Amino acid sequence: MRASVLLGAGHVEVQERPVPAVPPGEVLVQVASVGVCGSDVHYWRHMRIGDYVVDAPLVLGHEVSGRVVAVGEGVDADRVGGRVGVEPQRPCLACGQCLAGRYNLCPRMRFFATPPVDGAFVEYVAVPAVFAHPLPDELSDDAGALLEPLSVGIAAVRKAGTVPGDRVLVAGAGPIGVIVAQVARAFGAAEVVVSDPVRERREAALRAGATSVLDPAAEEVAGLGVDAFVDCSGVAAAVVAGIGALRPAGRAVVVGLGDADMVLPVATIQDRELTLTGIFRYTGTWPLAAHLVASGQVDLDRLVTGRYGLDDVGAALDADRDPASLKVVVEPGR
Amino acid sequence: MRASVLLGAGHVEVQERPVPAVPPGEVLVQVASVGVCGSDVHYWRHMRIGDYVVDAPLVLGHEVSGRVVAVGEGVDADRVGGRVGVEPQRPCLACGQCLAGRYNLCPRMRFFATPPVDGAFVEYVAVPAVFAHPLPDELSDDAGALLEPLSVGIAAVRKAGTVPGDRVLVAGAGPIGVIVAQVARAFGAAEVVVSDPVRERREAALRAGATSVLDPAAEEVAGLGVDAFVDCSGVAAAVVAGIGALRPAGRAVVVGLGDADMVLPVATIQDRELTLTGIFRYTGTWPLAAHLVASGQVDLDRLVTGRYGLDDVGAALDADRDPASLKVVVEPGR
Amino acid sequence: MRASVLLGAGHVEVQERPVPAVPPGEVLVQVASVGVCGSDVHYWRHMRIGDYVVDAPLVLGHEVSGRVVAVGEGVDADRVGGRVGVEPQRPCLACGQCLAGRYNLCPRMRFFATPPVDGAFVEYVAVPAVFAHPLPDELSDDAGALLEPLSVGIAAVRKAGTVPGDRVLVAGAGPIGVIVAQVARAFGAAEVVVSDPVRERREAALRAGATSVLDPAAEEVAGLGVDAFVDCSGVAAAVVAGIGALRPAGRAVVVGLGDADMVLPVATIQDRELTLTGIFRYTGTWPLAAHLVASGQVDLDRLVTGRYGLDDVGAALDADRDPASLKVVVEPGR
Amino acid sequence: MRASVLLGAGHVEVQERPVPAVPPGEVLVQVASVGVCGSDVHYWRHMRIGDYVVDAPLVLGHEVSGRVVAVGEGVDADRVGGRVGVEPQRPCLACGQCLAGRYNLCPRMRFFATPPVDGAFVEYVAVPAVFAHPLPDELSDDAGALLEPLSVGIAAVRKAGTVPGDRVLVAGAGPIGVIVAQVARAFGAAEVVVSDPVRERREAALRAGATSVLDPAAEEVAGLGVDAFVDCSGVAAAVVAGIGALRPAGRAVVVGLGDADMVLPVATIQDRELTLTGIFRYTGTWPLAAHLVASGQVDLDRLVTGRYGLDDVGAALDADRDPASLKVVVEPGR
Repeated sequence: MRASVLLGAGHVEVQERPVPAVPPGEVLVQVASVGVCGSDVHYWRHMRIGDYVVDAPLVLGHEVSGRVVAVGEGVDADRVGGRVGVEPQRPCLACGQCLAGRYNLCPRMRFFATPPVDGAFVEYVAVPAVFAHPLPDELSDDAGALLEPLSVGIAAVRKAGTVPGDRVLVAGAGPIGVIVAQVARAFGAAEVVVSDPVRERREAALRAGATSVLDPAAEEVAGLGVDAFVDCSGVAAAVVAGIGALRPAGRAVVVGLGDADMVLPVATIQDRELTLTGIFRYTGTWPLAAHLVASGQVDLDRLVTGRYGLDDVGAALDADRDPASLKVVVEPGR
Repeated sequence: MRASVLLGAGHVEVQERPVPAVPPGEVLVQVASVGVCGSDVHYWRHMRIGDYVVDAPLVLGHEVSGRVVAVGEGVDADRVGGRVGVEPQRPCLACGQCLAGRYNLCPRMRFFATPPVDGAFVEYVAVPAVFAHPLPDELSDDAGALLEPLSVGIAAVRKAGTVPGDRVLVAGAGPIGVIVAQVARAFGAAEVVVSDPVRERREAALRAGATSVLDPAAEEVAGLGVDAFVDCSGVAAAVVAGIGALRPAGRAVVVGLGDADMVLPVATIQDRELTLTGIFRYTGTWPLAAHLVASGQVDLDRLVTGRYGLDDVGAALDADRDPASLKVVVEPGR
Repeated sequence: MRASVLLGAGHVEVQERPVPAVPPGEVLVQVASVGVCGSDVHYWRHMRIGDYVVDAPLVLGHEVSGRVVAVGEGVDADRVGGRVGVEPQRPCLACGQCLAGRYNLCPRMRFFATPPVDGAFVEYVAVPAVFAHPLPDELSDDAGALLEPLSVGIAAVRKAGTVPGDRVLVAGAGPIGVIVAQVARAFGAAEVVVSDPVRERREAALRAGATSVLDPAAEEVAGLGVDAFVDCSGVAAAVVAGIGALRPAGRAVVVGLGDADMVLPVATIQDRELTLTGIFRYTGTWPLAAHLVASGQVDLDRLVTGRYGLDDVGAALDADRDPASLKVVVEPGR
Repeated sequence: MRASVLLGAGHVEVQERPVPAVPPGEVLVQVASVGVCGSDVHYWRHMRIGDYVVDAPLVLGHEVSGRVVAVGEGVDADRVGGRVGVEPQRPCLACGQCLAGRYNLCPRMRFFATPPVDGAFVEYVAVPAVFAHPLPDELSDDAGALLEPLSVGIAAVRKAGTVPGDRVLVAGAGPIGVIVAQVARAFGAAEVVVSDPVRERREAALRAGATSVLDPAAEEVAGLGVDAFVDCSGVAAAVVAGIGALRPAGRAVVVGLGDADMVLPVATIQDRELTLTGIFRYTGTWPLAAHLVASGQVDLDRLVTGRYGLDDVGAALDADRDPASLKVVVEPGR
């Protein structure tokens, strides 16, 4: 099969690789669409993210949809032919974190496109059957791939404890921020205020379902008194402002990746008994993600601003240089 | 009645004041013992804490025990004669926070010894009947007063989600740190590690029930992997180290008052899905506090290193200049 | 003012009563609309519900909307003129249950139209300001009154732990069942199955937002494997069937009032670790209720099948004899 | 190896069986002690429990301790020689329930001594490494085996939401009731009232840590107003009485196995917003169980009233005919 392999900073090459064997309990998926994530772009440019270093050829891509073409031992043969969205995790399932239902925190996790584990800019991948989630017919292949960032949004909104009637502030109107805004609405939030310094992004957030937007350079959020704040910007100033916007007993969730350390208003956290936390991937989100899209509560297709074949992965990884680009996908069969 | 009134930095004076009237739903308490808290000392020295400024004569003291000597309308007369520990809060009871069970966060709170509300370095105070909690016979008057800092400890250990078998790290072995260690054991913590740079304080923590102690200047906590961390030091370095000592999905509670802003390891909070929060006083703690002391699980009397009369409140407020002093009380009837 | 007073079974009479005084912290409300509840009808026919006996003249009616015409001491005068939905509870606010946020369980509760407390089939009522909830302009007076049964529905759906994506079974398609179905959808339930033996009621449930309906006389629910079950029928057979329809770790909430004792499948509750509970009124529901109606997620006006004046309260209380009647209201100004 | 095999009601026979192979991820345990459970006795006498029918030779016994003598592929060889308590579950680890942390509810569960899965009245068993929990030195082999019923007790007390200061009622002072009483104390319960009609059992409960006992034939529990009720009797009258003893918002957990259906006071559950639930085995209990015994908070050894070898399993299964017998164990190496 054909695979797009990262060989050095800014250097990918299509190589021939064997189609993976299908171990017991797994399925073989013919890849239909793979979203390009900021982490892919970061590896592509810097060959590392924090402690994770690309020191051997690596296949990128971890937002995946496709069709089951073979099943391993112990998997129902009826699954062949089914369209799936892939949850790109491989936890050990047997450690304390896994047994407690927090498999995203498994210390032995193997995750797509995280060195040394290859990702999905290829024609076929083998994945655990339980993590190949059936796709409703209403979902396009691209939407099926983007259930992964939608899962990030669901994990964030759940962590924020969002319940119907809540008022939620979201900082950052990139793909994740827009998705979080839509998910918060789907969770019943009465108000979703999105903050972003870029006008086009604010407008996109409004179209996607934000009830209002604001420009952090021009407007204060301190008096909002929101129930929950979700940072999707990774910018320290936004995190600080968002914490200050919370009502007593409010909850802040930091999703955006930014500086490892930030100066935070601890006295405010104490005086208002606020809760600050973050998310690391997700657990149990795919079925809900598929439902939110199928029911029209979240629209993923509109996020897609570009489509590329396996031969154009480099262009896909550089698409973010165009400010009008929001989300691009690689379709290996293109 | 006699009242010790703060008139300026380092200046208290005993004055005559009328015995308070007893409004409906309240009881009149003859004060037996009042603990001196760090906040009292701070007002005494600086005439302010943050935005709270002492700009008129103020009675300090908010850790109170005594005996009911009269009841207001609507309160059972049988309460007269009963010994009580006083919860020094006066929430409005009718706002959204109060109705939700978070009366400690009531925006209309009136709190003892917080300007402009007088405290308890006096002979008599009137308090809502529901916040005058009966004292078991086993408790001394001093222990009755110290149910207040014990309530802080209980609120912290609850907020830390402590359950039997947990491993807990406590930073700071002052009165609150020692109390938190004891409460954590009472909540079933299998290990309670207390960190303090002062040897005498570490030894006091061990005697009080810590399962181990460590000197943060000499030992790392990063690898502990504890379930919960409670900071009782207010020192940023201790907060950062404690967060780093948490296992994935662990919980940090900042109790100590220190810098309003701190540089915190946000990436660690995200990668491990940690939760950081603080406490602001307490709700519903007095009955449990009284039980923990009566059952011998928490020993408050041993914390008391000095007792003073109303005429010596200045000396009581300066007792912390002696490093051997841990906790002192004012006994108006002395 | 004019008041409709229950004097005996089937016997109400309009009498003159003084307009209530407005105590501190309260507001005087000119009543606009009062929903007739099954409990009103039960008192009207049987002069008792369980231990509550009507042994003195009683005003019925506890689902109330109106307009503030005067405020008591301590209440913002700006509230005069505002339209409100009334939460008909008067908890003591100072007992353990109230302080814990469970004011609905206050042992000293005084509740509208529950002997010996008069209700709202009158021209004016005085209620605590905090329980006179502002009505958005979008809501009719009738909808404002029906925020009370909607609050029952919200309390039930919350108690059922309903989260987005859930599958929920509702037994009984009377007013409460239909409301619960709508609320469950608003909480994000992906499927809401309503069971009722009457075809017209099933059709009403479908129109109101149920995703499917079934006739319990003809169809089994045992295999549904739903996440939550809410009984709004009070029929033991429906409760038993609903429990059997739950997936492992599912939750059953019994809202309908039926036999005091029921034969329940305890072994099933154990084998699947199910949770069975009930609700007793509500806490903190009015703001969300108003939002759900204003945002169009719940439609209360369509439930109203009859409107009566104060002189026709008897007819209003007998309206349920017409099978086509779903919900009627009394409008004192009519 | 030698195995005691159930061949018919009241008929066990020691047979030779091959020592089990050790699959990847598993360990081979030389069995030291196996507790006899009521379910073993029920199979022995009736050849079935509910839908589980013994229709082929079956090895009983599921409360197991022993020593690791070999490890399968992927398991650290250092585990050889270690003493372990065995969690006798084999969930699939990959279904929705397992991934959500509720592996006890796995629909593909294979459980020791539940047809057709053999149990532990043998010399060697192979179990997943993660379910072979290390035993502290302080624990005897018998205590190691009895971590299984202790796990039932922990699961029950957790499900009851027991927190420090709680008042708990336990019905039934058999082995599980006595264990639940001890666990409730370890969870900080201020009062643990144990109800049992048999005086000797009440006395045993008092010795084990109950704060008071009562005879249900002579004393009412209705007015207790306890926070939680745990039934360990399986008797409907006890369950009903225990529910009636709860304060508003209290929690009832039915652990005892009794009639599949019981007449329950639904109106009481509604009026007080009580929660009724049950437990089905346990998750994540062994480390805490071992700690509770090692720290002296729970004493399992004192429960053991008889020890038998593999040749005397029949006598062990009939030991309960002696009313003085509380708990017996089979020690294959005896």
